[in-house]
Amino acid sequence: MSHSLSPEEDQLLVQLLADVKHNTEFFMGYPVSKDFNYEELMPFLQYPMNNLGDPFVPSTYAVGSRELEKEVVKFFADLFRAQSNDWWGYVTNGGSEGNLYGLYLARELHPKGMVYYSEATHYSVQKNLHLLNMENIIISTQANGEIDYDDLENTIRMNRQMPVIIMANIGTTMTEARDDIGRIKAILKKLAIKHYYIHADGALSGSYSAFVEPRPAFDFADGADSIAISGHKFLGSPMPCGVVVAKKSNRDRIARSVAYIGSMDTTISGSRNGHSPLFLWYTIKKLGTAGLKERAMRCLEVAEYAEKELQKIGIQAWRNPNAITVNFPEPPLQIRKKWQLAAESGWSHIICMPNVSKKQINELLAEILVSIELAELT
Amino acid sequence: MSHSLSPEEDQLLVQLLADVKHNTEFFMGYPVSKDFNYEELMPFLQYPMNNLGDPFVPSTYAVGSRELEKEVVKFFADLFRAQSNDWWGYVTNGGSEGNLYGLYLARELHPKGMVYYSEATHYSVQKNLHLLNMENIIISTQANGEIDYDDLENTIRMNRQMPVIIMANIGTTMTEARDDIGRIKAILKKLAIKHYYIHADGALSGSYSAFVEPRPAFDFADGADSIAISGHKFLGSPMPCGVVVAKKSNRDRIARSVAYIGSMDTTISGSRNGHSPLFLWYTIKKLGTAGLKERAMRCLEVAEYAEKELQKIGIQAWRNPNAITVNFPEPPLQIRKKWQLAAESGWSHIICMPNVSKKQINELLAEILVSIELAELT
Repeated sequence: MSHSLSPEEDQLLVQLLADVKHNTEFFMGYPVSKDFNYEELMPFLQYPMNNLGDPFVPSTYAVGSRELEKEVVKFFADLFRAQSNDWWGYVTNGGSEGNLYGLYLARELHPKGMVYYSEATHYSVQKNLHLLNMENIIISTQANGEIDYDDLENTIRMNRQMPVIIMANIGTTMTEARDDIGRIKAILKKLAIKHYYIHADGALSGSYSAFVEPRPAFDFADGADSIAISGHKFLGSPMPCGVVVAKKSNRDRIARSVAYIGSMDTTISGSRNGHSPLFLWYTIKKLGTAGLKERAMRCLEVAEYAEKELQKIGIQAWRNPNAITVNFPEPPLQIRKKWQLAAESGWSHIICMPNVSKKQINELLAEILVSIELAELT
Repeated sequence: MSHSLSPEEDQLLVQLLADVKHNTEFFMGYPVSKDFNYEELMPFLQYPMNNLGDPFVPSTYAVGSRELEKEVVKFFADLFRAQSNDWWGYVTNGGSEGNLYGLYLARELHPKGMVYYSEATHYSVQKNLHLLNMENIIISTQANGEIDYDDLENTIRMNRQMPVIIMANIGTTMTEARDDIGRIKAILKKLAIKHYYIHADGALSGSYSAFVEPRPAFDFADGADSIAISGHKFLGSPMPCGVVVAKKSNRDRIARSVAYIGSMDTTISGSRNGHSPLFLWYTIKKLGTAGLKERAMRCLEVAEYAEKELQKIGIQAWRNPNAITVNFPEPPLQIRKKWQLAAESGWSHIICMPNVSKKQINELLAEILVSIELAELT
């Protein structure tokens, strides 16, 4: 480009970069990894990488990363114990697109199905259901944020004439509660429901649930029909991205139903980001299964530390089993703002992502202590 | 990250980068700009930039580019002659998401509407309509790829009891034909249709149609209710992106209808790419309206050159008025493959994006000449 920015515009960029850097330092309330280093991949950013359409269907557009994308999908299909000859998927623009895809598959298979999901579900799911025009019922949650299985059972019982579509949370946004797909399947069996579909929203926890023990019931072997995870959360990526894995047999049924449009592409977008699969591939290859497990264990250790230390200073902190999210009564606004801590109904949380250190936890603890002392003085 | 890639994986990356570089050099059939230079913005790629939710609704997530995104949307709202107090929009993951959004708005306003679009429409629109569960009818096209206004009128006449939703192509994929929104509005008036919505798919041509004379009828002043363009096409971006601009009053109606989910966010995704708005902002600021117009004129000049030179060697090349796409009978496979030229029903095209030079056109011409001579010899 021959033209140039004005001094004011240049200054604006410098300031934005400084703000972004500063604000990233105090991330403790968002489930976003910031410890990635993709310097080696920056040369690719000079090119318009586009994984047009279905990664498993060849394309004439030759500037992309579809081969690597297929490896990423395979990695998660294996990790999520999909049947070796019955999986398919793609790298999405984020967890929300993965959920949209799962629910879309469910609707195509069960057009007259009723969707059930807990009230702790992320609001984007309701946006998706609205977009897809799907009937749905919100189920109560238990105190820890997990779906209330009794309410689920009773509600399905009242609608037994309809196929059942379950949107299970593998880690809710606020308390990282995991709905148990084993228990959900038991309810479906008890009620003799034959037509059902289970989609697992594993945005954050889905990416590492395979590494914890006891292994939560969340994947294909447990009964899920599709699983969506975010890529920018546990793995880390400069831009939002995700992976959706579904049963190939289900995807093929949809492909047939849209074949009249002369395309086998069942992805939501047409043009797709060719850089994000590269980032995910890089992280998976660099860390391997062992490295990713180690990464998860480190997070869990920091979370355990944070929970205990908060309790030591008299704060009622608690965690769901094997969760990296530590819940506690909301601290003063000033502290929440600095560390970007969300708050809901009087509760706040810190999410011990790989970049959150014990040193940072100590800093936060010191600030909370000061705020308690100040409150006692006044 | 402490781990590292294996030598084979390193080699794979080196090879992929070489392939990507090589394949980008011979882009002539895809509407993708490759002349961007965002080196100055690469430091931002170290951070997880995320323009969470609606750019016009403040967010506590402080690592993003929403202020710049709003400027990008405003730039196009002005360029597309939106009413100064009635526009809204956001930077999407590509043209397809923008079309999905426009159609979604249309469905919310006219749940019982019928969608009309020409058979030259991109297949992703049919995918979107399937996703949105919207009734639709395909209209014939004229030889140049433009919608057949007589067929449109007759078809609407047979369904006058239903609100009309028009998906107009501002540049079709194959021949870059523009549907004339002025003529479409005249048909609606003639048939006394009171409830209608017009969405303009301006993927490629929409980005520069405001610069050509006579100005095609495609924007808000001409009668469009929403316009979607791609960002990686005429402007250029390493990853697919786009902009959707809609009437704020329409968006607000939807916001009210989804307010029960406790969010004013009507965007399709939740987490949104914070880098692509930065790229678009940078290009807009660097080039300005004058620079963008110059860019468009250069493309048109190269297209005119290609059309004439092809005709000179006896090839039946043709263009739609003020189009940068030059259509001609498909050349041999070998040539199509090298220059990544799409082909459909015996026709192929070159798209004279800003990076396509007369030198490249000459090279292609020479290759076509050789192929003709070879064919005559045998």
